[in-house]
Amino acid sequence: MFLKYFYDDALAQASYMVGCQKTGEAAVIDPSRNLKPYFDTAEKEELTITKVFETHIHADYVSGSKEMAERAMATIYYSAENGGDEFGTYEWSDDLDTVGLKDGEKVQMGKVTLEGLHTPGHTPEHMSFILTDGAASDEPIGMFTGDFLFVGDVGRPDLLEKSVGVADSAKKGAIQMFHSLQRIKNYDPSLQIWPGHGAGSACGKSLGSIPTSTLGYEIKTNPALQPENEADFSDFLLADQPTPPAYFGIMKKVNKTGAELLAEQTTPLRFGANVKKMQNLLGADVTIVDTRSREAFAASHIPGTVNIPFDSQFANWMGSLISYDRAVYFITEEHHVDDLRLAMNAIGLDRTAGYFTPLVVEQYEMAEGTADYPIISPEQAEKQLNDGDLRILDIRDHFEYETSHVKGAENLVMNDIPNRDQSELPDGPVAVYCGSGQRSAIAASLLKEKGVDVRNIKGGFMRWNQESRPVDKVEKVTG
Amino acid sequence: MFLKYFYDDALAQASYMVGCQKTGEAAVIDPSRNLKPYFDTAEKEELTITKVFETHIHADYVSGSKEMAERAMATIYYSAENGGDEFGTYEWSDDLDTVGLKDGEKVQMGKVTLEGLHTPGHTPEHMSFILTDGAASDEPIGMFTGDFLFVGDVGRPDLLEKSVGVADSAKKGAIQMFHSLQRIKNYDPSLQIWPGHGAGSACGKSLGSIPTSTLGYEIKTNPALQPENEADFSDFLLADQPTPPAYFGIMKKVNKTGAELLAEQTTPLRFGANVKKMQNLLGADVTIVDTRSREAFAASHIPGTVNIPFDSQFANWMGSLISYDRAVYFITEEHHVDDLRLAMNAIGLDRTAGYFTPLVVEQYEMAEGTADYPIISPEQAEKQLNDGDLRILDIRDHFEYETSHVKGAENLVMNDIPNRDQSELPDGPVAVYCGSGQRSAIAASLLKEKGVDVRNIKGGFMRWNQESRPVDKVEKVTG
Amino acid sequence: MFLKYFYDDALAQASYMVGCQKTGEAAVIDPSRNLKPYFDTAEKEELTITKVFETHIHADYVSGSKEMAERAMATIYYSAENGGDEFGTYEWSDDLDTVGLKDGEKVQMGKVTLEGLHTPGHTPEHMSFILTDGAASDEPIGMFTGDFLFVGDVGRPDLLEKSVGVADSAKKGAIQMFHSLQRIKNYDPSLQIWPGHGAGSACGKSLGSIPTSTLGYEIKTNPALQPENEADFSDFLLADQPTPPAYFGIMKKVNKTGAELLAEQTTPLRFGANVKKMQNLLGADVTIVDTRSREAFAASHIPGTVNIPFDSQFANWMGSLISYDRAVYFITEEHHVDDLRLAMNAIGLDRTAGYFTPLVVEQYEMAEGTADYPIISPEQAEKQLNDGDLRILDIRDHFEYETSHVKGAENLVMNDIPNRDQSELPDGPVAVYCGSGQRSAIAASLLKEKGVDVRNIKGGFMRWNQESRPVDKVEKVTG
Amino acid sequence: MFLKYFYDDALAQASYMVGCQKTGEAAVIDPSRNLKPYFDTAEKEELTITKVFETHIHADYVSGSKEMAERAMATIYYSAENGGDEFGTYEWSDDLDTVGLKDGEKVQMGKVTLEGLHTPGHTPEHMSFILTDGAASDEPIGMFTGDFLFVGDVGRPDLLEKSVGVADSAKKGAIQMFHSLQRIKNYDPSLQIWPGHGAGSACGKSLGSIPTSTLGYEIKTNPALQPENEADFSDFLLADQPTPPAYFGIMKKVNKTGAELLAEQTTPLRFGANVKKMQNLLGADVTIVDTRSREAFAASHIPGTVNIPFDSQFANWMGSLISYDRAVYFITEEHHVDDLRLAMNAIGLDRTAGYFTPLVVEQYEMAEGTADYPIISPEQAEKQLNDGDLRILDIRDHFEYETSHVKGAENLVMNDIPNRDQSELPDGPVAVYCGSGQRSAIAASLLKEKGVDVRNIKGGFMRWNQESRPVDKVEKVTG
Repeated sequence: MFLKYFYDDALAQASYMVGCQKTGEAAVIDPSRNLKPYFDTAEKEELTITKVFETHIHADYVSGSKEMAERAMATIYYSAENGGDEFGTYEWSDDLDTVGLKDGEKVQMGKVTLEGLHTPGHTPEHMSFILTDGAASDEPIGMFTGDFLFVGDVGRPDLLEKSVGVADSAKKGAIQMFHSLQRIKNYDPSLQIWPGHGAGSACGKSLGSIPTSTLGYEIKTNPALQPENEADFSDFLLADQPTPPAYFGIMKKVNKTGAELLAEQTTPLRFGANVKKMQNLLGADVTIVDTRSREAFAASHIPGTVNIPFDSQFANWMGSLISYDRAVYFITEEHHVDDLRLAMNAIGLDRTAGYFTPLVVEQYEMAEGTADYPIISPEQAEKQLNDGDLRILDIRDHFEYETSHVKGAENLVMNDIPNRDQSELPDGPVAVYCGSGQRSAIAASLLKEKGVDVRNIKGGFMRWNQESRPVDKVEKVTG
Repeated sequence: MFLKYFYDDALAQASYMVGCQKTGEAAVIDPSRNLKPYFDTAEKEELTITKVFETHIHADYVSGSKEMAERAMATIYYSAENGGDEFGTYEWSDDLDTVGLKDGEKVQMGKVTLEGLHTPGHTPEHMSFILTDGAASDEPIGMFTGDFLFVGDVGRPDLLEKSVGVADSAKKGAIQMFHSLQRIKNYDPSLQIWPGHGAGSACGKSLGSIPTSTLGYEIKTNPALQPENEADFSDFLLADQPTPPAYFGIMKKVNKTGAELLAEQTTPLRFGANVKKMQNLLGADVTIVDTRSREAFAASHIPGTVNIPFDSQFANWMGSLISYDRAVYFITEEHHVDDLRLAMNAIGLDRTAGYFTPLVVEQYEMAEGTADYPIISPEQAEKQLNDGDLRILDIRDHFEYETSHVKGAENLVMNDIPNRDQSELPDGPVAVYCGSGQRSAIAASLLKEKGVDVRNIKGGFMRWNQESRPVDKVEKVTG
Repeated sequence: MFLKYFYDDALAQASYMVGCQKTGEAAVIDPSRNLKPYFDTAEKEELTITKVFETHIHADYVSGSKEMAERAMATIYYSAENGGDEFGTYEWSDDLDTVGLKDGEKVQMGKVTLEGLHTPGHTPEHMSFILTDGAASDEPIGMFTGDFLFVGDVGRPDLLEKSVGVADSAKKGAIQMFHSLQRIKNYDPSLQIWPGHGAGSACGKSLGSIPTSTLGYEIKTNPALQPENEADFSDFLLADQPTPPAYFGIMKKVNKTGAELLAEQTTPLRFGANVKKMQNLLGADVTIVDTRSREAFAASHIPGTVNIPFDSQFANWMGSLISYDRAVYFITEEHHVDDLRLAMNAIGLDRTAGYFTPLVVEQYEMAEGTADYPIISPEQAEKQLNDGDLRILDIRDHFEYETSHVKGAENLVMNDIPNRDQSELPDGPVAVYCGSGQRSAIAASLLKEKGVDVRNIKGGFMRWNQESRPVDKVEKVTG
Repeated sequence: MFLKYFYDDALAQASYMVGCQKTGEAAVIDPSRNLKPYFDTAEKEELTITKVFETHIHADYVSGSKEMAERAMATIYYSAENGGDEFGTYEWSDDLDTVGLKDGEKVQMGKVTLEGLHTPGHTPEHMSFILTDGAASDEPIGMFTGDFLFVGDVGRPDLLEKSVGVADSAKKGAIQMFHSLQRIKNYDPSLQIWPGHGAGSACGKSLGSIPTSTLGYEIKTNPALQPENEADFSDFLLADQPTPPAYFGIMKKVNKTGAELLAEQTTPLRFGANVKKMQNLLGADVTIVDTRSREAFAASHIPGTVNIPFDSQFANWMGSLISYDRAVYFITEEHHVDDLRLAMNAIGLDRTAGYFTPLVVEQYEMAEGTADYPIISPEQAEKQLNDGDLRILDIRDHFEYETSHVKGAENLVMNDIPNRDQSELPDGPVAVYCGSGQRSAIAASLLKEKGVDVRNIKGGFMRWNQESRPVDKVEKVTG
């Protein structure tokens, strides 16, 4: 048997290739849309990808299963255990070769066997796959657990409720999750656990930075495997789950059928530093994202552009803040363009239309003038707040704000800014902060675009705390 | 003034950027469709491209003028001196900002002046542009001569007749060319000459491998500037012009309006080494080109694929042998894909749909078996020909065949092979040769695909000659 | 805790990074000499590499521990359990910060603990490291087993005897290995196993293509964990171990102290296609390796060069066939140079002096003529053997030859060819074969360089078998 | 004949390849040390580089002639017209194949001829080369003029005096230049002129941004060809020549013999973001250059590092401000390392020892704290100057300062800063400015490292002027 682990850092997403050298076949479990790593490996190992397995309908990225089925003419194996739930039901096109699996059904590939195990909780149809390497033993070697069991965590059950609005599904999912967890306790503790995500994924709340685990180790150490009854477990699981990124709802819809093929995409065009073209686009119904650093954007930017720096959280913020219906243009270094586009494709933002180089900002400054906003120190912020010259906005999530925040700060969650009218936003001078200054730079650019007189507080709440400035918290009423 | 020379090796095509540092503007003369080099330079020099100049309606590559006009919102300056000739008349879309120039009209850009000089011959509307750097002098510094005057050659006047079928236009063009040449003899001999093509271009017959020249040097040394009357000149010019590549006719049509924007193109997909996908495509109405070396293709290839190795003549043979109406798939190393696509775009072949890696041939061999053809030595070829076991085909151009060929060889020009029915091709064993073995490898693959029992003669006519084997020639009847 | 798996395909070698996010420190277990992946990860995770762990003195690649200690100023933790054995004793320079560990000693790094477990067998000093993630549990999570326990195999105990010539050490190591294996049976079966090598490594005989395992799964399925007494185990373990690559002996010496820093290396120079320089080098005491495909080399090569194609076995054959004392020059595509050098460095071949592009072969052919050798079909080989016109050489390992070989073939192990005088080699025509034709292409080039009239049999023993041609085997006398 | 133009943007340096297709030979005129472009072209054209021509002993970059002679085993042709002048005399090693040329001597290469023409002025031995393409004509086609005649300028005659300290050589050179210029007026005005440098080179004072010219055009338009007697010419030529970069003196010495081969260089090492290694180096006798943007450096940098951003002037400032005797370490993005090293090699700074990634600054900030300096607006600078709180330093060249400067500013030329003791520098707060803010950022970092309380004025003198703030100038006493 051949087994290889794949990990996409930007998505904190794990996928897997299993192959049988004897028959030359390979299967991929939960491929992302960028198929290059799978093709590279298959070619190196001289295997042909003939099968794709989907653990569930993903909410956080576009599945590559349809793309693989089309390009490699592979068969898709998916969970048919939807229990009649609309949100657990795939709607594959008839052109594709697909097989719905029921709990306990096995798929044979040479000497390798994958057995479906229905493990609802994160989603109603969620299926794990138990792997047996027949060349070595009849005993299973491990389990692909998707978003059911992570290292140190389990999949969150509240996404359907929060992202798609299915009433009461969070509680229902939590109870399913409890029973799914009890069920796997019967398996051999030396089974390996191969999860669908790692640290940083929004599909759970505290995933570990460890790629693989064992059932025995999880039973001993995973907090989610400790509660002994439905109620305790449910309380534990539903507490403190963060707001899911805005684009999760779209992903759920896209992944029921599979996204458009990447072949349908057109090519992003370079516009160099052309000011006239920039002006032309600024007047059109498109989105222009400036991926330069927050310091550079704060110092000088083209009015009407939004600042989402190209770092590890790029896809997340694009998905949350940018409209899926408009063409997107970038201001970016040319050597980032391919990676930007991969990141956009990963979450189904398929309308990258073109890009300008950073020089366009300088050229625009000379031709038309640019905008800027101040970055101020916590000390300055505190003084101006006390003097009544400034309002301070905490743009973090509610639960972060509630735990502890700058004394006197108001909470305006960043993801809500794009939907606010100007009248719903402060008109006097405001300063924004987040945890460390990264998110608040994006928020500052969003507010600035809506005409707010904004500044960013350097170092965020972390530095505010380090300097022992006054904080406050919200008493939560439980029950 | 700023001036930079650009040269595209694959097209043997020269273009130029002129800028005025004072106003920050730049103009490009005869851009190819790959705009990256122009944008790179403009950004480095902090110039904005505001103008594009077309010397004429090109026959050998897709002009980048429309693409530049759309992306940089630049104005296109083109020759309005069409003399009522349909084939000398542009048909720009109304969306574009265009200016038709008459002989003697000047375009000012800061301190720089470009003056149109009508120089018909290669095409009826052909215009050269005389450049004056007002910052240095009122005297012109040089002339962009497009396909009028090359280093050591002039533009051929027979393309409209041969590629588009305009009767008698070759002779007419030759006479126009004579008068255009006489006219420029009046200019200062120290003027620089900046031509539109270099060695290897099919727009002339003996272009030099020298990037620039002067009017004085050309008057002294260029063979086309020596004949003193229309008749001598015309005889000289029309003699020995090679068959133009098949795609020149298409280019003439495309360049009257400008090609589709590259943004309209979709993305080529990777299919790895997937045999099933390959089988699927082999049954479809598409073209599959194997870009591996001729040795590798001869040794083992997938039946139904054509061998056009990725070398300096790639674009030329693709344009001549491949249908513009079908999607094209490649078998190629992944690191060549971007360059392949650039080469295809350069000649308007915009339907690159996907690619397989070379491993697919090995995988296909294991699954289905592959085909091969022998490469034989001149010695073997001569013996088999004498024994009556073999026919030998010279696949070079008629005028090459006529000059000298393998004794006993028949002439079948390679560009004609795709249009022949199987019944029009030899059914016994044949061996093909060309000059050095490159073209004949392509021809062998074309014949093989049509079911001919083919072999390739190693080293071509060059080696045949070196080994002093018997040759023959065709007596030409002049007059 | 942070944990990441690294895998070097060329070396089939696994290494690991463990970090503690709380203190920002990281440790690398068994780094290879290419530190880029470790630095990339450390930077991405904002960790500082402060520690390096060596499981044992490696025989198959240059350890990167010294390089890391110098560059990152990290501390090296190594096994001090040498039992007085010279070949189990490190000889670190005093400049380095090193700590020798005894069985049971623990190293703390923030919340993470690594405990040394002396597991001799592969080497006398071999140490495994048991990992505990104190942030999650006091129970260990897994074990870095180096070349002690692999997935489906254990480390071979015969390298010191075969590569360095330590008499009787193979048997002694086998018995140590038996007891090391019994000892770990006492640990929790749900412990993860993180081995030092994967499939293809010559440090074992049948390693699995599976990256990680668990103790429980190995106890159930690993053949080496089944024998119940020293004798059975020893017989099992010592049977059928292949000849170790020739460079293993050198590696053992290099790794006792650590190799020279890569900074001491000079830069490989490009010589283009310069024939004069090639002639100059052909007369010098240097090695010239042609990395082109076997088909291209067979068709035309420069006499005096050796053919080692740049594929996955490149480092292996370079280490086995090329002198460590001579400068090495390559004929290779320029885009392979960095990778070639990395592969050379990985096994301590630090004298890459320069390279020519493949065009040099064509230029040499025109100037001086080149050599070639035929690739013949099994059918031709069989006929000529039967006619008495040909001797056939099987250049595979003895144990492969003994199992089954071409009827009438003699065995000449490839690694022995460089050490043979011309007088010890056949002078009539010979044909060589291996398993599939890859190794025998290298062997053919070695024989050709020594003046043998050689040819290569297409497809090797695999194809011979497929075509059902006569084979023979050697009856082994067991005793 | 084959002719190709090469241009190195970083050095503003032109070189040329001439080849004869008939014999397959090529010559390079004035190669820079990066031989890749010459090898690429030679291979593409299937030419072998057999000759190198040196127009003179260069002062501004390391000649690649010796490197080419060693690698391609080519012959070096150089000027033997040194007139007994030590600074005009090459000292080639005996290992090299070299030929000294006298005025009027010709070198034949197939059908191509290069004739030496002694054109002293820029240097005593300076030789131009007249090119004749015998395949086309017996008349010359053009002239490689090195640093004798540029487009719109001539070579400066004062470098030996200013860079190497040869008394009165500037005046003497000016008179030689006058006579060299008169001499070439006798040649055909349609000769092409191929100069050794373009705009931005410090080898002249006002070179044009035009790659090539003709003798006739230069005679008409080049200001240096207008004065009609020695005295007027000399006054014209010696006026307003800028201070040559500090490294020019070193280059003159290096180029008499040729630099060490690049093969002797060791490999730069990556140190990631390792703070401990950084601290270790900060205490050693090495130079650490931070290549990040001036904004990033001003905001936070490691004390003891110098800021030289990686832009088009990088090589110039490195050569002027960095010691040739110390190893150099960089803080830089990894994808710049190869280009940084090329730029360093181009001017003979061959001791690039290693690099850190920009993250090291953040890591250092957390561990040890970093330094910063303010960027202030012209308005703030003017106010503080008037209030007596600030001194303003103009760090431009003397002649720039004299022409016009900020009222009240003192002149401290940047190149002098490294040689000043702390006692010779201001101890109160100072603000620096240059033309646009680029140079002054470097100067600020140099002053900061010497303990000065520094700030940088945004936008430099250009913006000060745009805002119409008070300026002053120095009355020059002529005569």
